[in-house]
Amino acid sequence: MIHILLLFVLLSSISHASVNDFCVADLKAPDTPSGYHCKSPTTVTADDFVFHGFVAGNTTNTFNAALTSAFVTDFPGINGLGISAARLDIAQGGSIPMHTHPAATELLIMVKGEITAGFLTPTSVYSKKLKQGDLFVFPQGQLHFQVNSGKGQATAFLAFSSSNPGAQLLDLLLFGNNLSSDLIAQTTFLDVAQVKKIKARFGGRG
Amino acid sequence: MIHILLLFVLLSSISHASVNDFCVADLKAPDTPSGYHCKSPTTVTADDFVFHGFVAGNTTNTFNAALTSAFVTDFPGINGLGISAARLDIAQGGSIPMHTHPAATELLIMVKGEITAGFLTPTSVYSKKLKQGDLFVFPQGQLHFQVNSGKGQATAFLAFSSSNPGAQLLDLLLFGNNLSSDLIAQTTFLDVAQVKKIKARFGGRG
Amino acid sequence: MIHILLLFVLLSSISHASVNDFCVADLKAPDTPSGYHCKSPTTVTADDFVFHGFVAGNTTNTFNAALTSAFVTDFPGINGLGISAARLDIAQGGSIPMHTHPAATELLIMVKGEITAGFLTPTSVYSKKLKQGDLFVFPQGQLHFQVNSGKGQATAFLAFSSSNPGAQLLDLLLFGNNLSSDLIAQTTFLDVAQVKKIKARFGGRG
Amino acid sequence: MIHILLLFVLLSSISHASVNDFCVADLKAPDTPSGYHCKSPTTVTADDFVFHGFVAGNTTNTFNAALTSAFVTDFPGINGLGISAARLDIAQGGSIPMHTHPAATELLIMVKGEITAGFLTPTSVYSKKLKQGDLFVFPQGQLHFQVNSGKGQATAFLAFSSSNPGAQLLDLLLFGNNLSSDLIAQTTFLDVAQVKKIKARFGGRG
Amino acid sequence: MIHILLLFVLLSSISHASVNDFCVADLKAPDTPSGYHCKSPTTVTADDFVFHGFVAGNTTNTFNAALTSAFVTDFPGINGLGISAARLDIAQGGSIPMHTHPAATELLIMVKGEITAGFLTPTSVYSKKLKQGDLFVFPQGQLHFQVNSGKGQATAFLAFSSSNPGAQLLDLLLFGNNLSSDLIAQTTFLDVAQVKKIKARFGGRG
Amino acid sequence: MIHILLLFVLLSSISHASVNDFCVADLKAPDTPSGYHCKSPTTVTADDFVFHGFVAGNTTNTFNAALTSAFVTDFPGINGLGISAARLDIAQGGSIPMHTHPAATELLIMVKGEITAGFLTPTSVYSKKLKQGDLFVFPQGQLHFQVNSGKGQATAFLAFSSSNPGAQLLDLLLFGNNLSSDLIAQTTFLDVAQVKKIKARFGGRG
Repeated sequence: MIHILLLFVLLSSISHASVNDFCVADLKAPDTPSGYHCKSPTTVTADDFVFHGFVAGNTTNTFNAALTSAFVTDFPGINGLGISAARLDIAQGGSIPMHTHPAATELLIMVKGEITAGFLTPTSVYSKKLKQGDLFVFPQGQLHFQVNSGKGQATAFLAFSSSNPGAQLLDLLLFGNNLSSDLIAQTTFLDVAQVKKIKARFGGRG
Repeated sequence: MIHILLLFVLLSSISHASVNDFCVADLKAPDTPSGYHCKSPTTVTADDFVFHGFVAGNTTNTFNAALTSAFVTDFPGINGLGISAARLDIAQGGSIPMHTHPAATELLIMVKGEITAGFLTPTSVYSKKLKQGDLFVFPQGQLHFQVNSGKGQATAFLAFSSSNPGAQLLDLLLFGNNLSSDLIAQTTFLDVAQVKKIKARFGGRG
Repeated sequence: MIHILLLFVLLSSISHASVNDFCVADLKAPDTPSGYHCKSPTTVTADDFVFHGFVAGNTTNTFNAALTSAFVTDFPGINGLGISAARLDIAQGGSIPMHTHPAATELLIMVKGEITAGFLTPTSVYSKKLKQGDLFVFPQGQLHFQVNSGKGQATAFLAFSSSNPGAQLLDLLLFGNNLSSDLIAQTTFLDVAQVKKIKARFGGRG
Repeated sequence: MIHILLLFVLLSSISHASVNDFCVADLKAPDTPSGYHCKSPTTVTADDFVFHGFVAGNTTNTFNAALTSAFVTDFPGINGLGISAARLDIAQGGSIPMHTHPAATELLIMVKGEITAGFLTPTSVYSKKLKQGDLFVFPQGQLHFQVNSGKGQATAFLAFSSSNPGAQLLDLLLFGNNLSSDLIAQTTFLDVAQVKKIKARFGGRG
Repeated sequence: MIHILLLFVLLSSISHASVNDFCVADLKAPDTPSGYHCKSPTTVTADDFVFHGFVAGNTTNTFNAALTSAFVTDFPGINGLGISAARLDIAQGGSIPMHTHPAATELLIMVKGEITAGFLTPTSVYSKKLKQGDLFVFPQGQLHFQVNSGKGQATAFLAFSSSNPGAQLLDLLLFGNNLSSDLIAQTTFLDVAQVKKIKARFGGRG
Repeated sequence: MIHILLLFVLLSSISHASVNDFCVADLKAPDTPSGYHCKSPTTVTADDFVFHGFVAGNTTNTFNAALTSAFVTDFPGINGLGISAARLDIAQGGSIPMHTHPAATELLIMVKGEITAGFLTPTSVYSKKLKQGDLFVFPQGQLHFQVNSGKGQATAFLAFSSSNPGAQLLDLLLFGNNLSSDLIAQTTFLDVAQVKKIKARFGGRG
């Protein structure tokens, strides 16, 4: 015989704490250094743990490339869990130019086509041609790039060791804001004329 | 002579930061991935750091066992400190059936009686008979059990490496909700009849 | 003019520390709680950051499924970086049965076919049918499953928030080792006959 | 029918990584900031996860108290798991004098007798009389004490949020080594005569 | 030609996540175990990342010393970043008496004069005379002191491995609050008369 | 009377664990993801916790700047403690050009002269002129610069939230190794001629 009532004494003593096994983001509440506030567990549904939309991105842009992100602001179920993902599409001849993720390692999984990927250190370049079925890892905070080095479209999935990895394109950092061209030249050894030329492309002023 | 006033210039520059040496949970505020909001330090009292009630639990239930928890939701002073505790009572013949704590290691301290405890890996069972004065550790996330293998009541204290360790009883996970019996059978290799029989015990539907 | 010699005084003071931006595993040395020893930076090459072999796995087995892992023991470049990956192939009618990763969150990226995936808590089932382009997250340590619920082969990529996530199949934990059938029955509420039947399938003794 | 051979293809791809779900200390190898090297998984047995000896300590000493520790150096199975324990016995009139654990929160579980426990901040004392069934938490790094404030022996179990919490008795720090008495007096505002008197008790020189 | 519009499709998919590369404290909102809530990124300015005021402190107090802190409550830009700083001025003959930072390692950078600094363990004193250009590290939670052992003012900068390291002066802990003199004597082995004498200096009652 | 012998029973049970309050690096042993192996505690001396040599660096180089580092490889006492430091000297007109620390936040403490410091995000520049007594924080992984914007030498101390923060100068990453000029041009939008011109300065080939 089952003592349902007495069973529930035990169960309730056990289960009330289990709500914290996950913390679905309440994106309307403020962020904290460890992530967003948790939604009330009673309002969490299976939909919070699903993200739709890793379809082919539109690569008709200056990079001939598209990045579709599933970061915590897109996908509240990953809040606080230290992981996120993105889909990368690069048209023939295109590239994701030099960039960093300040607080995340990136793992690239090749799905289609050929990408030459690499990261840079002061003493070495670690770079490889990747084909379907290959993985490449870009350790946290390293400057890296992905170039379509094959024929036709290339597609890859990216996983990050943070639920909000950021993505800082070097060109946008240097040439997309209002840092003065002289200061950029001084701190990069680029010619001022070169700086101004690229600023025109990325919307930088000053 | 003591320059009390000047002393306080130094003291106030030092002491204002010390409030963060602890963060007593404000359980009415939202949770975050790192724990609950901190109560205002001015409202914290010694009572926040005490928990009463590790008395013998009522073991008259289907498991012949009782778990009394002192997790953060019971004991706000442990918020953010990565530790919590519970008291375990198992009547003769009873057990805490197979379960996991998804985000915590468990340390068991035997106080009375005899418990056979163990955890399971794909290749081995690590199991021991424990008597008064013995400790056993269940590494984080491992499936484990505790059985009263002696005569009379057994009592133990449990410590966890998380302020909110959760506790997921395998039977409740598999047989206490509305996951379809066919799907359970497919993903456990149990017979459907067996699944339905245990569902009747733990309140599962479908 | 460039003072190459003096430049190198600065560069060497800066660059000697950069070797720690990654720590490629020396898999022949002992492991530690934070991961394997680092290979000497002078022996690291681009090949350490590449993994080959996410090809279709052989699904002719009892699960009609295959998991190809790129964990730290397969892919030394991810050592210490808190991320890893796997490829999942499930033939029509197959499944990855109930399992946990004790110390890692899992992110599933659907590539082909249809998978019904979910995880279980004591009070709810969070489950969805996933198609190409969908993602699903299984929070750390939760019991979960993946079933091919469509027609034809299904393929997904998995990312984990640990470089060595483990993978514990419930059937192997319960029925693949020498834990006594009586103890299993007592701690799962399964019938002994059922336990022995599944043990025969998974090689368990006792 | 069971395809044992094909099954093992899947199992071996899955199970090789699971060895890292724990890391039993090899106490003969060097320590690292994250803990000791892991013993080879093939040499791990259930005994590694058990500690014997939480028996009543000998309280016939200057403190009339005994602390029996189960830290990683006593209990290799807890290596890297962020938890440890101790048993505390205090004879009537005895105490564990002022001390800190530099890198661990302490949770005290009262088993017998009465202990007055507390910790000190620059602005407050958080102190309580504890009886059987009470818990008290000493947040990480706080100066704290435990005094037997009842009749007869008092016993408690302690859990720590570190596998190697240390234990620094203030008297030993100040009066048990060779720090000069003048310097101690200057940096504590104690009288030199008082310093020398206590040094005689704790073996300090200088 | 630049496809500005299409470029922005890519840019917006990339840049929306970058707001989390920092989390400037909203000091009016509640604290959490991981730090304060983040200010809205749109209200963050360069001023949030600057702290003014590491000028010479007023050392006319009982310690002949001054500590000027740049902790998170003084400097919101460091919220969640695990670092903070302070300026230390000690007049000739003065000292920062014995104290701990419960949750932070301290690094001392000598700028002017001579300081004898050290920390204490139960078995050793690690102490050195420091001059301009020397560094000293006090590991987390260790009891330590700094004495001006030279002629004239001494100045140092301190860095801490926490954005809110606290600072607990032993004299304030023991003699600045209302812990009873008898209990202090019992748990420190100090004479009651000595306790009362120092309490008079630091404002303690009881 | 003091029961020295019995006292030592207690002391030895307490003090053996305290060796782990620090972990001085054995720089001859391999590194791990959490840092270097710990030196045997019996060989640790006060000298392990001191670093000498924050003297004015030689700024006669291409940057007119010098960085003197006290990272773990220079200063073994900080191993595993999450903190390190450096001294920065910039001659008039000089600068530390654009660079990142992939795994560390940097805190700058101005000592002398004037430095304009800032970091870049895709949407903003956070930059300030700093004078003696000012602090500036560069959050982890952000691209940043320091320019002597005043008259005469400028000096600052830097603290990092890692014991081995690395330092990656953008010019060295892009122009100091053998990454092909065409690939650099493609992934930075710089002109090939500009790339080759700066490569000549920093020793790059290809």
